[in-house]
Amino acid sequence: MADLFLVLIHHPCLDRGGRIVTTAITSLDLHDIVRSARTFGVRGVYVAHPVRELRDFAARVRDHWFEEPGRRFDSRRREALELLHIVDDLDQAVAEIERLTGRRPILVYTSAQARDGVSCEHLRERMNSEPSPILLMFGTGFGLAPAVRERADLVLNAIEGADGYNHLSVRAAVAIILDRLRGEPTVL
Amino acid sequence: MADLFLVLIHHPCLDRGGRIVTTAITSLDLHDIVRSARTFGVRGVYVAHPVRELRDFAARVRDHWFEEPGRRFDSRRREALELLHIVDDLDQAVAEIERLTGRRPILVYTSAQARDGVSCEHLRERMNSEPSPILLMFGTGFGLAPAVRERADLVLNAIEGADGYNHLSVRAAVAIILDRLRGEPTVL
Repeated sequence: MADLFLVLIHHPCLDRGGRIVTTAITSLDLHDIVRSARTFGVRGVYVAHPVRELRDFAARVRDHWFEEPGRRFDSRRREALELLHIVDDLDQAVAEIERLTGRRPILVYTSAQARDGVSCEHLRERMNSEPSPILLMFGTGFGLAPAVRERADLVLNAIEGADGYNHLSVRAAVAIILDRLRGEPTVL
Repeated sequence: MADLFLVLIHHPCLDRGGRIVTTAITSLDLHDIVRSARTFGVRGVYVAHPVRELRDFAARVRDHWFEEPGRRFDSRRREALELLHIVDDLDQAVAEIERLTGRRPILVYTSAQARDGVSCEHLRERMNSEPSPILLMFGTGFGLAPAVRERADLVLNAIEGADGYNHLSVRAAVAIILDRLRGEPTVL
């Protein structure tokens, strides 16, 4: 089964007006996303930010749980945060995954707007026989800029809700997509 | 199809040591959960807290987006926050749902530990022909106290991940459970 990786991208993203922006790193994004990733067997979570101060912030959020007294407080957070790697950009994440696995990852673009891509079920099937690692790319702010989509090998369709409302948080979208790709299929 | 409601309970909950505690309301819980709820057609989200100051806080988080200048800023947050009702406790949520729908809701207990309950697929099937509303109960902190389980009509099994790690955030658990209960089934 293909190794699954995830990257949370902070630049280039869109703001509500469709302009290209760099978003801030949110500590809760990191915690929620690594916990979901750990639950569903993701091999690594990359947080990509072009600004050094924000990367340092992410490192402090992570390292708090590896040093005293945080270390003693909650081993389950630590177990999840071990997945977290802090990088400058997508290229660095791709290079690290290639070094780890020996293969270039397949880049998967996610978006609340995508309609012409593949379903999670399709990707789940493909992962069964895929030798290359899969890298799911998630945007912050109002989503990934078009330049990121142009680099993608695959586009994942948006999560469809009840009546077209599609404004999930990135934390919720990550959770749902990982469950669809890797969740235990249960029987009635 | 049964109307679906959700209640986020802050007392009685457990802390990491298994003691009964009252947890604080987190603004991001409210935002994330109503956005997921709105996406999947939940009819109402109740946030239950016994302390008036915390209920007032939740009301401010909600009302910010209904008053100027927040009102102008983001209509999609408002659309989701319209689902939010602030109550003292579970009884008040149940009474409100009964008043709204004319029927007492079926209380569904959720927990990261539950193994002897029903699956989401089972509940999804049942909802197709169930005339009573369904109220999903979610805990904060380290989960709902046993007293809440005793009141439940149904227990929902925990979300199973890759290898027994089950420490999802409540925001992620809500997203996944709503997707499993109400998400659009997609084809390969």
